[in-house]
Amino acid sequence: MSYPKINFTPGPSQLYFTVEDHMKQAFRDGIPSLSHRSKKFEKIFADAVNGLRELLNVPSSYHIYFTGSATEIWERAIENLVEESSFHLVNGSFSKRFFEISAQLGKKATKHEVSAGEGFSNSLDVPSTAELIAVTHNETSSGVSLPLDFIYDFKKKHPKALLVVDAVSSLPYPDFDYSKLDSVFFSVQKGFGLPAGLGVWMVNDKCLAKAEQLLAKGRSIGSYHNLPSLHAHSLKNQTPETPNVLGIYLLGSVVSDMLRHSAHKIRKETEYKSFLLYNTLNKHPHLKPFVKDERFQSRTVIVVESGERTEKITTSLIEKGMQPGDGYGAAKKHQLRFANFPTHAKEHFELLVDSLESM
Amino acid sequence: MSYPKINFTPGPSQLYFTVEDHMKQAFRDGIPSLSHRSKKFEKIFADAVNGLRELLNVPSSYHIYFTGSATEIWERAIENLVEESSFHLVNGSFSKRFFEISAQLGKKATKHEVSAGEGFSNSLDVPSTAELIAVTHNETSSGVSLPLDFIYDFKKKHPKALLVVDAVSSLPYPDFDYSKLDSVFFSVQKGFGLPAGLGVWMVNDKCLAKAEQLLAKGRSIGSYHNLPSLHAHSLKNQTPETPNVLGIYLLGSVVSDMLRHSAHKIRKETEYKSFLLYNTLNKHPHLKPFVKDERFQSRTVIVVESGERTEKITTSLIEKGMQPGDGYGAAKKHQLRFANFPTHAKEHFELLVDSLESM
Repeated sequence: MSYPKINFTPGPSQLYFTVEDHMKQAFRDGIPSLSHRSKKFEKIFADAVNGLRELLNVPSSYHIYFTGSATEIWERAIENLVEESSFHLVNGSFSKRFFEISAQLGKKATKHEVSAGEGFSNSLDVPSTAELIAVTHNETSSGVSLPLDFIYDFKKKHPKALLVVDAVSSLPYPDFDYSKLDSVFFSVQKGFGLPAGLGVWMVNDKCLAKAEQLLAKGRSIGSYHNLPSLHAHSLKNQTPETPNVLGIYLLGSVVSDMLRHSAHKIRKETEYKSFLLYNTLNKHPHLKPFVKDERFQSRTVIVVESGERTEKITTSLIEKGMQPGDGYGAAKKHQLRFANFPTHAKEHFELLVDSLESM
Repeated sequence: MSYPKINFTPGPSQLYFTVEDHMKQAFRDGIPSLSHRSKKFEKIFADAVNGLRELLNVPSSYHIYFTGSATEIWERAIENLVEESSFHLVNGSFSKRFFEISAQLGKKATKHEVSAGEGFSNSLDVPSTAELIAVTHNETSSGVSLPLDFIYDFKKKHPKALLVVDAVSSLPYPDFDYSKLDSVFFSVQKGFGLPAGLGVWMVNDKCLAKAEQLLAKGRSIGSYHNLPSLHAHSLKNQTPETPNVLGIYLLGSVVSDMLRHSAHKIRKETEYKSFLLYNTLNKHPHLKPFVKDERFQSRTVIVVESGERTEKITTSLIEKGMQPGDGYGAAKKHQLRFANFPTHAKEHFELLVDSLESM
């Protein structure tokens, strides 16, 4: 079976280039059948958490937990952090799904929605009753990324609400100031280049306190994966359930590789590669960035308006060993998406832009 | 790093002997970064479900879904199948946890509890209000397994309640008559010998109808992993969230290997191996089965009362390349547990009993 050598789909994306070697080492060390109540697992858990803390510059006032997926975190965040009402900035399919999950769980979910490809104005109204403000840092469906200052501004204007940031397809790129947010989460199959099946949920003490408060009021906050349970187990470097041990091991291993390379270099390279592609698009006779406003153009998921040439470009790139991502949902026929994650080398992007320039 | 060649811990247990080769093939075929919305994934999903159906003899009236863990299924079963009250047969730590989760989720959970190591009498009372009866087929903590006729009898006596069977540490051994049950679930790191991080939930139409009914009444049944959502996606051979794709691939691959060997042979071999160990324990001067009543002695998790010799036996077995499982919780100091799963060869058990006989 053959498949392209470079996979630009925005998730699951191309594996980080060290994953296969780490998997071999895992089998040599018995990790796939390791007990999650063993000392050896506790070290794997601690290595992953401490590595993430260092790579992403997460302060000690934040806690880091593991779930099955980022989709699960949408649900757990609503269950644990919202008694009555949540407010959502919606500008694409994923931010919309977070909003829908809140409604499904019986909360009063309200939203401010703009069209796909657009950002938000600073002056939008947030209901004063909102206990949680949900912000999607990077909309994987449309390639819109929100500027960090815009996100921090929400916390300043609405200090009582918990500000929860979906960073699924942006981390490890953004250099968040976590003191200006209350919770950040992601899944490992995008920027971290790992096999799917693991979500990472980071919360501050205010989130823990809110969950405890809902519990004290007799509200259901879920069982094994509620915040107090995740927290109590994390203090022992353990998880409430038998987790994806191999996934946690691989995450810790890749984070350690990324630290050797350095977070700073990853950020600079991400910016350079995205510059290459946007620059090519801006000069291209037939292609253009789907996101018009430069302030909102994502560095990590670049969406291209490719119109009726979409199919031809896809075929041509695949012939050259590059797999572009389809446009999301209904945009499949006229857009292409390109992930720009740490595993995508500068050489990959140089080859990509050379190829696009001649199309 | 060295570790014993034969791992008898009851979960995560020794890998099925083909797993490492399947993992290598997965990397060659690009499975670790495969999109869960691709045709190739749909085939992997269908292969796993159809293989399980054939191996376990699951009728077409049952549906098969994937979750992150069996712990998650405890929660989802309560959320989706119980409006007011559930009833639990409790005889160890895992059956007790299922009961506790129901209470945590705000249901009226009642139980009939016996001491660890004991089974149940046929004449126990079930509240007529119970919407769900939770039965743990095989208590991993104590090595008690409930006879199938005993379980079926519940369904006969309480036809209105949904009978949900935790078969985490017994499948693929038991040859269930699924028409006499409403739901069965397990996780893959025990009898299937796979890396942890995947639960398998099998339900009949009555379970689906119950979830729909709760939804129509405005009850919260969770979001992405509620039964209607799992079901709608499974009809497309998909999952609601980005799942553990690699886990589903490995499950399908191992199930296919087991089918080649045959479910019948797996069952016969399981019985032969358990006979070897119980026979040795019954004749042993210092060791005995923890479960006294032969009707309740598990074939798949055999718990040994090893008293003050526990530590010495453990050391001696490890020297011979065999890792016994510790007794569960407080029993760690005076019991040992031995998993008897399809990956454990007859030769492993012959070596184990030869070694125990000389202790």
